[in-house]
Amino acid sequence: MANILQHFHGSDLEKIAAHYHLIPSNIINFSGNVNPLGLSNTIQEELARQIHLIAAYPDRDYLNLRKTLGKYIGAPYEDILVGNGSTELISLFIKVLHPQNALIIGPTYSEYEREIFINDGKSRYFPLLEEDDFKINIENLKLHLSEQTDLLVICNPNNPTSTSIMKREMREILDFCLEQDVDVVIDETYVEFAEDVHDVSAVSLTPFYQNLFIIRGVSKFYAAPGLRLGYGISGNKALIHKINDLKNPWTINSLAAYAGELMVQDLAYIDKSRRLISTERQRILSILSDWTTVKVYPATANFILVKLLTPHNSFDVFEKLIRKNLMIRDASSFPFLSNKFLRFCILCKEDNDLLLDELYRILQDHTTTIG
Amino acid sequence: MANILQHFHGSDLEKIAAHYHLIPSNIINFSGNVNPLGLSNTIQEELARQIHLIAAYPDRDYLNLRKTLGKYIGAPYEDILVGNGSTELISLFIKVLHPQNALIIGPTYSEYEREIFINDGKSRYFPLLEEDDFKINIENLKLHLSEQTDLLVICNPNNPTSTSIMKREMREILDFCLEQDVDVVIDETYVEFAEDVHDVSAVSLTPFYQNLFIIRGVSKFYAAPGLRLGYGISGNKALIHKINDLKNPWTINSLAAYAGELMVQDLAYIDKSRRLISTERQRILSILSDWTTVKVYPATANFILVKLLTPHNSFDVFEKLIRKNLMIRDASSFPFLSNKFLRFCILCKEDNDLLLDELYRILQDHTTTIG
Repeated sequence: MANILQHFHGSDLEKIAAHYHLIPSNIINFSGNVNPLGLSNTIQEELARQIHLIAAYPDRDYLNLRKTLGKYIGAPYEDILVGNGSTELISLFIKVLHPQNALIIGPTYSEYEREIFINDGKSRYFPLLEEDDFKINIENLKLHLSEQTDLLVICNPNNPTSTSIMKREMREILDFCLEQDVDVVIDETYVEFAEDVHDVSAVSLTPFYQNLFIIRGVSKFYAAPGLRLGYGISGNKALIHKINDLKNPWTINSLAAYAGELMVQDLAYIDKSRRLISTERQRILSILSDWTTVKVYPATANFILVKLLTPHNSFDVFEKLIRKNLMIRDASSFPFLSNKFLRFCILCKEDNDLLLDELYRILQDHTTTIG
Repeated sequence: MANILQHFHGSDLEKIAAHYHLIPSNIINFSGNVNPLGLSNTIQEELARQIHLIAAYPDRDYLNLRKTLGKYIGAPYEDILVGNGSTELISLFIKVLHPQNALIIGPTYSEYEREIFINDGKSRYFPLLEEDDFKINIENLKLHLSEQTDLLVICNPNNPTSTSIMKREMREILDFCLEQDVDVVIDETYVEFAEDVHDVSAVSLTPFYQNLFIIRGVSKFYAAPGLRLGYGISGNKALIHKINDLKNPWTINSLAAYAGELMVQDLAYIDKSRRLISTERQRILSILSDWTTVKVYPATANFILVKLLTPHNSFDVFEKLIRKNLMIRDASSFPFLSNKFLRFCILCKEDNDLLLDELYRILQDHTTTIG
């Protein structure tokens, strides 16, 4: 059972609650990586007024949505594809490119590996190293991009390490990949949580790299994983065209398409979210760096990866916390991570303090409970 | 331009309005085949209260939705798959079966042919004949189900003919296909509009035919094409399993999943819809059968196919009607139909009367305007 629980998705809160005989609504979820402000009230009120939108087909070209997204990210709408969550876009992109040998920068989440496998390709991982604080070593990466590699997969900021590749470094990677004829997909699901989006996002590079496809979505930053709205950006018209040919029409529902337009224009919400995450991220990192029981890595997304320096293993800590209604992610199932790694996302100050207090207590206790 | 207009989808009302310099909201749409009652108020009010559902991932297994659908159609939930509109299910079904030689009962809409083509298969049509009033000739169908055929595609009730294959006839077809090792997909998008659903729907046959897959959805009967909610039924566990393996998770958004549960339990709406369509269908068929200017066929869905017996062609009539803000479907683009065929759906009595009056006038006028 332990192994099964360690592989639960963030959406499996109900199953975990049932297993530990907890009331789901009492659990504070540090595992879903979702914006703690929750769905914007402004958006909720407007959508409630617009329920009738589901009575009409969405615009087949999602033109208003793509134009609004284009303004938000600073890209021409012709270069934007919308999809049913980032999952549909990953799936279509891999189907069209049909990579035989992909290199995935890891530790990262497993969806890319699965899609590449389904489409008869092979994946290898290029490991970010713990001794480098999970920062990328570009020279080393170049050595691993052998001639056989046809696709490089990057999650930026990366999950679960919360590290980022800065735009200037990304350009170096993209230049090398262009020379070597390697396609690159960058998943920027968490980029809006970064301190300065424009220093991390590669969207402004899309006109210059025909080998680049970027995937984003509204699930995490706009706290709307149930909406199923993702988008992809590429300056490569032929690629956009091929994906559109393969794509089913109307995979985003009418209300979701309208919600997407509203969300990226909700400046008050965007600003408040960024300030909250930035403040709490600094505060938590500063607290944790004073602890002797953990090692913490530079975090740029809305979650933090921690290594246990005590005899505890990550599942022990997960279990102790869930019994206090605090659900974190035991990160041992990620490639290259061991059972010494935990991931938790940044929620509101009060919740973060609850977690830090409890975690502190658990880790201090090791001399009496373990070993 | 005429050719382009003839191929517009029902959702292209805006484009047609722009072309004819009309105000979209003034147009009465007889072309979309959507329930004229529109979205149920009960559903709209409840969904407005539940907008917050988009802040959580949908249940990966859509268990509540599938159980509710199961009760509604009388099938075990294990035999039900849900998808992003019927389009996703058609697409997955064709991908998994990968038919090389499909036989499609036509005239019908073109989505199946497209999907089979995309997956490297060939389609032939088995024509319903005008001289048979577009009713199926089963003996003739058997002759056309040659040894090479691996898939038979049936839309029941059929679009655009509005004819149905009754369950007892369907059983004869299914028995023959089982013997010949032919898979059968039945699209029952319009079945809830039929006089007696249980005499037409093949859902009750699914436990007995491992070669059968049925597709349904909420777009037309529940007036929710923007929701993107379809479902498929099969007693073939291996097929259900294969489709699930290929399917992206969460392609139905959280609010849509909940809406689906509400819709099929909204008995007042279901009853009112069926009574309206049944009454108006009888009334319109009776009126049209007295006209000497058209031939009309037995209609079982919420739309009616008409053949012009005057010198007009269907595009003439479409244009004359759209200028009066009445949008019907010029049916000439369907396989085997000519430019003498029109299709229009049943709306509320007042709107139907407007259309019948205008159509009567146009068709009476032919001696002075044409020839």
